[in-house]
Amino acid sequence: MSDIEKQVQRAIDTYKSAVLAKNVETLMHVYDPDVRVFDAWGTWSYEGAAAWRVAVEGWFSSLGSETVRVTFDDVKILGGQGFASMSAIVTYTASSAQGQELRAMQNRITWVLEKSGHVLRVIHEHTSAPIGFEDTKAILKREGKT
Amino acid sequence: MSDIEKQVQRAIDTYKSAVLAKNVETLMHVYDPDVRVFDAWGTWSYEGAAAWRVAVEGWFSSLGSETVRVTFDDVKILGGQGFASMSAIVTYTASSAQGQELRAMQNRITWVLEKSGHVLRVIHEHTSAPIGFEDTKAILKREGKT
Repeated sequence: MSDIEKQVQRAIDTYKSAVLAKNVETLMHVYDPDVRVFDAWGTWSYEGAAAWRVAVEGWFSSLGSETVRVTFDDVKILGGQGFASMSAIVTYTASSAQGQELRAMQNRITWVLEKSGHVLRVIHEHTSAPIGFEDTKAILKREGKT
Repeated sequence: MSDIEKQVQRAIDTYKSAVLAKNVETLMHVYDPDVRVFDAWGTWSYEGAAAWRVAVEGWFSSLGSETVRVTFDDVKILGGQGFASMSAIVTYTASSAQGQELRAMQNRITWVLEKSGHVLRVIHEHTSAPIGFEDTKAILKREGKT
């Protein structure tokens, strides 16, 4: 694993643990202040970390006592020299406070990362689900491998 | 405009003119052979230019005598040194053979580009529309600036 891959993997690990802990502060460490986020839900674009932070706070507080475990599959990391990209299929699994699995949802995720000081930070995030041709509804589960 | 911005702009121009001409060959020049495409419609991921080419051929042939004009708004280009990213709001406007506007649709688009020889090629594309919270339907028009 190259140095850049290790650093991207570290950002993924931070993302996973911050979501599980619903820790906004830790999660925001992943993002550059100038980040542009194309989120899967509701809004076309969040410009800057402050705007994105409000959305994350809303997400975490909407969970109540539930927790969300995140897994990344088919991770592809590219780049080098202080600039990188990561793409993957991401699964969000919500569990009750008692540890019971409630629901799971999948997205495609893209990160563009840039080195800021010694740390690689996300300057662009794009998450989405493919749209069904017939009903224009989001397909939130990947069946098989299409 | 930096050198990298000029090169990304050139890829955008090629994309626009290739879609307008429904020229698969020209459009595929924009993409790296190893491209991974997270397309807005139907499929989670296309791995490699050959798979993506089949989808593009399907798109162009589905248009019949219609043509599609593409415009890019809020373009943000980042990177340098043989690696770059571009994000934008893209509008696809379909017109009849007689030049009458039939329908328009908007997406968010992300490109990750890498230098291959002297040319910057797209190694990752991600297009999508945000999902409505209520009905999980894709929102295919950006009203105002959200």
